[in-house]
Amino acid sequence: MTDPVADHVERALADLGLTLPKAAAPVAAYVPAVEAGGLLHLSGQLPFKDGALVTGRLGEGLSLEEGQEAARLCGLMVAAQIKAALGGFGRVRRIVKLGVYVNSAPDFTQQPQVANGASELMVALFGDAGRHARSAVGVPVLPLGAAVEVDAIVELSASALD
Amino acid sequence: MTDPVADHVERALADLGLTLPKAAAPVAAYVPAVEAGGLLHLSGQLPFKDGALVTGRLGEGLSLEEGQEAARLCGLMVAAQIKAALGGFGRVRRIVKLGVYVNSAPDFTQQPQVANGASELMVALFGDAGRHARSAVGVPVLPLGAAVEVDAIVELSASALD
Amino acid sequence: MTDPVADHVERALADLGLTLPKAAAPVAAYVPAVEAGGLLHLSGQLPFKDGALVTGRLGEGLSLEEGQEAARLCGLMVAAQIKAALGGFGRVRRIVKLGVYVNSAPDFTQQPQVANGASELMVALFGDAGRHARSAVGVPVLPLGAAVEVDAIVELSASALD
Repeated sequence: MTDPVADHVERALADLGLTLPKAAAPVAAYVPAVEAGGLLHLSGQLPFKDGALVTGRLGEGLSLEEGQEAARLCGLMVAAQIKAALGGFGRVRRIVKLGVYVNSAPDFTQQPQVANGASELMVALFGDAGRHARSAVGVPVLPLGAAVEVDAIVELSASALD
Repeated sequence: MTDPVADHVERALADLGLTLPKAAAPVAAYVPAVEAGGLLHLSGQLPFKDGALVTGRLGEGLSLEEGQEAARLCGLMVAAQIKAALGGFGRVRRIVKLGVYVNSAPDFTQQPQVANGASELMVALFGDAGRHARSAVGVPVLPLGAAVEVDAIVELSASALD
Repeated sequence: MTDPVADHVERALADLGLTLPKAAAPVAAYVPAVEAGGLLHLSGQLPFKDGALVTGRLGEGLSLEEGQEAARLCGLMVAAQIKAALGGFGRVRRIVKLGVYVNSAPDFTQQPQVANGASELMVALFGDAGRHARSAVGVPVLPLGAAVEVDAIVELSASALD
């Protein structure tokens, strides 16, 4: 039986030369994802590269390109958490919303461009199902000094056969 | 056939002397609104006045009144995006939640008063259906230097006749 | 008729020596909670101790322990608002998501530890139903100078008998 969404994701990862990271354990007393009312709510994900957290502040030592890469790494962790929570991508109907928090100096105003690192990955991985609503805002600091944090809401079908 | 919500909105806009702005195109790689599970999730909206972005920081050059007007303009854009996404207001059952991000100097603590610019507009436009839950927080900077950003969750009926 | 969730909450409050605060009236033009699509969306809650707001900034005068206590007080207000909105805890199926905003100096990066004050209370009060997804971010300032703000999404059953 074919699974179009899962197939798309796996192919896109291969095309992009990307591997899903190990789904990160929560930093503290909560869980990575909760399903309710047909929606999967994902906890805020931080950017990890080769197991190391990407830290720093945009407009203060971290370049736009580094910020975009950090956002992309957050997005990759979003995908890893979806897979870990559901056992695969077969039930993903739509990426509904991303919340993107960018560690920003007070004069850095390119949060949308940074957030595109995560948004473009969603479209690359999920195709039309990856086209999402989004909020992107600046914050003065993030957990452990992370450069970007991304949380997400995902619409699910009742089963992978829907 | 009458449509009470749509009628209320159109009358309220006329009474307030307001016109819905052209629904702004996303600044980047995402979409303005996604419907899932009976809820419409709207992307963060920025304040535009006569097509120009309202920028600045509360407690640092921007007055409370200017902040409230910026929040109201965000709310007007929220309404414009709802109409653009649904083709009208007939399916709006309730404004569920607003997230209000206020570009704030570290000693500015009147985020609720600023956010009221958007909240009061929702009630003016949608009546009881406009009474929403809300979070209002300070942020150090917003996309393109915007003064306020507002995202929203809206409950929809299955059809305009519900 | 027994109500397992409500019983658990009442027993846990007694065990912890806690009393639910009076559900705070909104600071402004919105409502504390809106139910839609099986989910209860709660407005951002501020920390009150004996009726007084807990103010201050983490990493700048406020200790980690004081921040955790503030987050716990926000969580207690979340519980109070759930009870006020529903008339009890019988319809609570799951705490789905907490959004935790921590008033932070730019070099304070322990937002997860602060947020645990709220998260651990949810698990203490609701048991497995209290295990939630979460985002925790730093913000430069909060309404009225509050130390922490917490909003929430709660999954409900159609009736207390479900």
